[in-house]
Amino acid sequence: MFMFEKPLGMVDTLPKLYEVKKRTRQAMTKIIEQWGFQFIETPTLEYYETVGVQSAILDQQLFKLLDQQGHTLVLRPDMTAPIARVAASKLYNNLYPLRLAYSANVYRAQQREGGRPAEFEQVGVELIGDGTTSADAEVISLMVSTLKEAGLEHFKIAIGHIGYANALFKEVLGNQERADVLRRFLYEKNYVGYREHVKGLPLSSIDKERLLALLTLRGGIDKVEAAKELVSSEEATLSLEEINKLWTNLEAFGVTDYLKLDLNIVSHMSYYTGILFEVYAENVGFLIGSGGRYDHLFEKFNRAAPATGFGLHIDRLIEALNIEETPQLQCVIYSQERRIEAISYTNELREGNKRVVMQEITGIKDVDAFTKQFEEVAYFIGSRKEEL
Amino acid sequence: MFMFEKPLGMVDTLPKLYEVKKRTRQAMTKIIEQWGFQFIETPTLEYYETVGVQSAILDQQLFKLLDQQGHTLVLRPDMTAPIARVAASKLYNNLYPLRLAYSANVYRAQQREGGRPAEFEQVGVELIGDGTTSADAEVISLMVSTLKEAGLEHFKIAIGHIGYANALFKEVLGNQERADVLRRFLYEKNYVGYREHVKGLPLSSIDKERLLALLTLRGGIDKVEAAKELVSSEEATLSLEEINKLWTNLEAFGVTDYLKLDLNIVSHMSYYTGILFEVYAENVGFLIGSGGRYDHLFEKFNRAAPATGFGLHIDRLIEALNIEETPQLQCVIYSQERRIEAISYTNELREGNKRVVMQEITGIKDVDAFTKQFEEVAYFIGSRKEEL
Repeated sequence: MFMFEKPLGMVDTLPKLYEVKKRTRQAMTKIIEQWGFQFIETPTLEYYETVGVQSAILDQQLFKLLDQQGHTLVLRPDMTAPIARVAASKLYNNLYPLRLAYSANVYRAQQREGGRPAEFEQVGVELIGDGTTSADAEVISLMVSTLKEAGLEHFKIAIGHIGYANALFKEVLGNQERADVLRRFLYEKNYVGYREHVKGLPLSSIDKERLLALLTLRGGIDKVEAAKELVSSEEATLSLEEINKLWTNLEAFGVTDYLKLDLNIVSHMSYYTGILFEVYAENVGFLIGSGGRYDHLFEKFNRAAPATGFGLHIDRLIEALNIEETPQLQCVIYSQERRIEAISYTNELREGNKRVVMQEITGIKDVDAFTKQFEEVAYFIGSRKEEL
Repeated sequence: MFMFEKPLGMVDTLPKLYEVKKRTRQAMTKIIEQWGFQFIETPTLEYYETVGVQSAILDQQLFKLLDQQGHTLVLRPDMTAPIARVAASKLYNNLYPLRLAYSANVYRAQQREGGRPAEFEQVGVELIGDGTTSADAEVISLMVSTLKEAGLEHFKIAIGHIGYANALFKEVLGNQERADVLRRFLYEKNYVGYREHVKGLPLSSIDKERLLALLTLRGGIDKVEAAKELVSSEEATLSLEEINKLWTNLEAFGVTDYLKLDLNIVSHMSYYTGILFEVYAENVGFLIGSGGRYDHLFEKFNRAAPATGFGLHIDRLIEALNIEETPQLQCVIYSQERRIEAISYTNELREGNKRVVMQEITGIKDVDAFTKQFEEVAYFIGSRKEEL
C-alpha cells in the first residue's frame, strides 16, 4: 500500500480541479500583467544561506537537503526572498521602482497528518523601490482587481500598520520583551489570551485600558480618531497619518467597499515595517492572502530599497470561489479500415476547439462502459456505415 | 557574493524568456487538451520508495532528503512514475484507455558547473491501457501537432523499436552482458566506440558484419527491408512488422514528412519495451523530447497496463524556436493632485488590454531614465495641464 502514498502534506491535483486552477490563474495573471508587473520564475531549490535565512518562515518549516558539494539547500518557502535576490543581481540594472510578479509553488514542512498543505501555489507581486503610500495603494487595488477577475465577489481586506501597535506597546510597556508577548497574542489572533495577559500586567488601570482598547480598533476608517486618543508618540501619529493618506488613495481607486481598518494585524512577527493587510473570503472566513510593506529586506541583498507586495493562496481562493468546471469531452471510436475518415472528422471537431478523444476500438475492453464518460460519441466502424 | 548565488544547475527565468515560455506552453497545452488528454499535477516531493525507485533516472541524479518522520523523499526526476501512481490510485475507477498530460518541472542533480539544468520543465502525455499501434501513432502525431502549434517548423522524429536491436544482439551474441555493452554504446550514440568494440569481438566476420550493418539502419521506412535480412528470430520480425504498421497509421495522420526510421535508438536503458522515438530540432541539432512504449511500469503499481507517451523539454524547444518576445509596456506618470484623472486614463488603456505601469512621480528617482523603458509615457502632473 505504501506504493500509493505521498509525503505528508503533499497533494495531487486531478483534472477537474486542475482546470479550475488553470482558469483562475489565467484570470489573475492577466490583470497583474495589465498593471505592468512582469512575471519571473526562480528555482525551486535555493541556498539556505541566501534565501532560507532571509525568509519570514520558521526554520522548522523549511525542507532542507544537502547538495553534492555539501551546501545546505532549501525548497523555497516563499517567493519574496528569491525575488529580492533576482532584483539585486540579474535585474540590478533595471531601475526602481521595479514591478515583479510570480505564480509559483512554495514549500513548508508539516508536522502532522491532515494539517496544512506542504506545497501550495502563490500568485503575488512585489513593488520594489517606491516608498510612497501610492505604492501601497497600488498593490492593494491590484489585489482587489485580481480577486474580482478571478470571480471572487465577497471578500474583505483588513488594513493595519505595524507601527501603531509597536508605538503603543513602547509607550505603555517600555520594554521589548513584554511587547513581544503581546504581539504574539495578536499574531495568533488569540484575543482572549491577550486580554487575560494584559489584566495580569503590573500596570495602572489607565494603561491597561489603553492596551485593551487596542482590540476595539477594528472597523471603519473612522476608528483612526479613537486610535489617536490612545497614543502620544510621533511614531504612532505618523503611522495613523499614513493610514489616512492610504485611505484617500484607495478611495481614488474606488476600492474602499472591500476594506476595513484593523490595527490589531501583526502578520509575520519581524518582517513587515509599515502598512500591512490580510484578505478574507467572506463566505468561508479564512485567509486567502496577505501583504504589506517590508522596507528592510533589500538591505540584506546589498540593494537597499523600500518594497511592498502581496501573495494570494490560489487553492484557498478556489475553495472560496466554489466553482466546478467539468471539461466536456467528445469521443470518436473507429476501426482500422475507417481510420482516415475518423481522423478527418476528428480534426474538424478539434479545429472548432472541441476536446476530442480519438480511440481505436480494439484498444478498449468494454466499449459501453468506456463511452459513458463522454458527452458525445461518434463511431467509424465496419465498412462505410456511420452512426452518430 | 554568495548572497546572489544559486545551487548548481538552477536558473532564474527573467521576464522576456518567461513570456516566450508562457506563450509556448499555452500553445502546446491547447493542442494536448483538444486531443482529449487531461492535465494533472502531482507533488514536487514523492517517497523515494514509490517514485524514486521506479524512475528511469539514475539514482545519483536524484535530489534526496529526509522528512521529519525519517522517510527518504525525492524531488520528482520525471513525471511518468508519479502519473502511474495517480492512475493506479486516485484514478483507479477511470477506465482504460486513460489519457493524461502534464506540464511540470522535474529535477536531476548535476555534478558540475555549466552542465545541464538541474530543474527543467517538461510538457508531456501518457496514454495508458492501450497496447495497439494506433496508440503509438496517436502519441507521435500529437507530438507533431504540439510542436507545430508551438511554432517549430523544422524537426525530425527518429522512430525505432527496442525489440529489434535486442533480437539481433540475442541472435548474434547469445549473452545478455555482451548485448548490454553494445546497447550502452548505442545509448551514448557512440558509434565509433560501437564499431571498434564489434571489430574486437570473437565472432565470425559474417556476424560482425551483421552487428555493423545495424548502424546503417537509419533513414526512410524502406530500411525495414534491409533490416529484415539481418535477422531471423520471431521477436525481430514482429518488431519490424510493428514498425510497418505504425508507419501506415502515421501516414493516415499525414505526419510522415517529419519522420525517419532509426533502428539504433535505445533511449533509457531499461525502460521502453517497444516502439520508441526521439525528436530533434533541425536548426540546432539537439534532442528536444522523446517517448515510447513502456508496458511494464504499471505492474509495479498493481494496475498492469500497456502505456505509451512523450515528454518535451520546453526550454530546449524555446531555444530551437529562437523567438524574442518583448512585452510592450506603457507608463502613466502622475502627481497626487491628478490621481483620479490618471487612474481613469489608465483603466481605459488596461481595458483595451494594454500593459500599463501607473507611477506616482515622487516614487521615482530619475524620471528621464525611468521613462526610457516604456513604449509610451503619459503625464498627469501639476494642475490640469496634460502632456501626452
